[in-house]
Amino acid sequence: MNSTAGKLYGLGLGPGDPELLTLKALRLLQTVPVIAYPCSEDGTSVARNIVAQWLRSDQVEIPIPLPFRAQESAAPYYDRAALKLRNHLDQGQDVAVLCEGEPMLYGSFMYLLNRLSGHFDIEVIPGISSTLASGAIAGHPLTYGNDILSIFPATLPIEVLRTQLAKIDAAIIIKLGRHFHKISSLLGELGLDDRALYLERISQPMQRILPLAAVNPAEVPYWSLILILSDRTPSASGDQSLGLNTSENALD
Amino acid sequence: MNSTAGKLYGLGLGPGDPELLTLKALRLLQTVPVIAYPCSEDGTSVARNIVAQWLRSDQVEIPIPLPFRAQESAAPYYDRAALKLRNHLDQGQDVAVLCEGEPMLYGSFMYLLNRLSGHFDIEVIPGISSTLASGAIAGHPLTYGNDILSIFPATLPIEVLRTQLAKIDAAIIIKLGRHFHKISSLLGELGLDDRALYLERISQPMQRILPLAAVNPAEVPYWSLILILSDRTPSASGDQSLGLNTSENALD
Repeated sequence: MNSTAGKLYGLGLGPGDPELLTLKALRLLQTVPVIAYPCSEDGTSVARNIVAQWLRSDQVEIPIPLPFRAQESAAPYYDRAALKLRNHLDQGQDVAVLCEGEPMLYGSFMYLLNRLSGHFDIEVIPGISSTLASGAIAGHPLTYGNDILSIFPATLPIEVLRTQLAKIDAAIIIKLGRHFHKISSLLGELGLDDRALYLERISQPMQRILPLAAVNPAEVPYWSLILILSDRTPSASGDQSLGLNTSENALD
Repeated sequence: MNSTAGKLYGLGLGPGDPELLTLKALRLLQTVPVIAYPCSEDGTSVARNIVAQWLRSDQVEIPIPLPFRAQESAAPYYDRAALKLRNHLDQGQDVAVLCEGEPMLYGSFMYLLNRLSGHFDIEVIPGISSTLASGAIAGHPLTYGNDILSIFPATLPIEVLRTQLAKIDAAIIIKLGRHFHKISSLLGELGLDDRALYLERISQPMQRILPLAAVNPAEVPYWSLILILSDRTPSASGDQSLGLNTSENALD
């Protein structure tokens, strides 16, 4: 560990609405001299866009291009990015990596962390994940009482998903993209479709919340999700008066 | 729906550090005239304590006493609280209910929502849940690649937990309290104890992160949790250099 080195921050930015940044993430964003963020090949960065209003011209920016072609290894991309961050850290500059959602949940930050951990002081600032925010955004509780809540990537094999989804209390299925039709069919087969809600671009201006039947599978972005409500709550398409069919005992 | 009525907000405050409030929660906290919060019988409110520095003397405060004795029904407590909130909403006053963590995840706000939904305009502001923040706080990724992440209440029957935990990728076990010994023994039996970390009072001044063996079961608060790391990551007690044994393919 280099004691004169800079500190590395992983800044969770939340699901997209700049107002869903934490006070801590905003403070660090405004004080750290070097800001890094993942971007696509053309330089577009969703993470940077979330906080663009607060970035200053005297801050150094490090775009981290990531591959978006299926099956291409991202390892060389992370290797190159880690080297760039290391150069700044070695010079004693703090570096903040911007992370959509929660950095430690299915995030690309983990692959930079893997490469720099042990060499530098690192702090990860939690952010609001679109997964758990989906209930608040849709206006439906995620869990009641002793419910188990599971998060499934839609990229899992169909047999795994069929077995696992058959016995859920409540679930969130992420990384939909081109897997939407597979998931939607499976939920129909399992009788879960009337407890399911589709959410896209949560908290952003283009946010959409739809029943599964209203979704065009050809237009499903990768970062969309399906929320499967606890069966202790009324159906997603049901009325807003949730009723009192819930466990309301005190803490046990 | 009463169109001249006030609006009800559920404000997610995050796990305890006031800096983990979102900008949106802080803005609403400072503009809504009536602030309600759960409290214990002696009036202590963890939620109010998180934001005490921002409350103003011209804001009306509504403490919501909740029972903390096991097996006592909370329903009459929520009935009384809903009636108080309704009185303010009917007079056209906006009301914000303070919620630790994420309001829609195992939160008491849901029981107020059930009682007031359909009658008033309601907006829930997501907050950072200590569950998903545990990875950032402990410095360990929660999930890699296609991992499934599940959240289990420790209050579930032991047989259910044994079956479910035997096949997890990664998990978070909440509501430990007096169930700690049961859970800790089960994790030992399942060979999961070396992937487990205990976290208490996440992001608060008294925060503690311990291996299971170092925990005194008699001192485990209700709102503590055990994080079980993905087995694609090194053990919780292992070195900080996480290595590259992870899936790093591009989006698929």
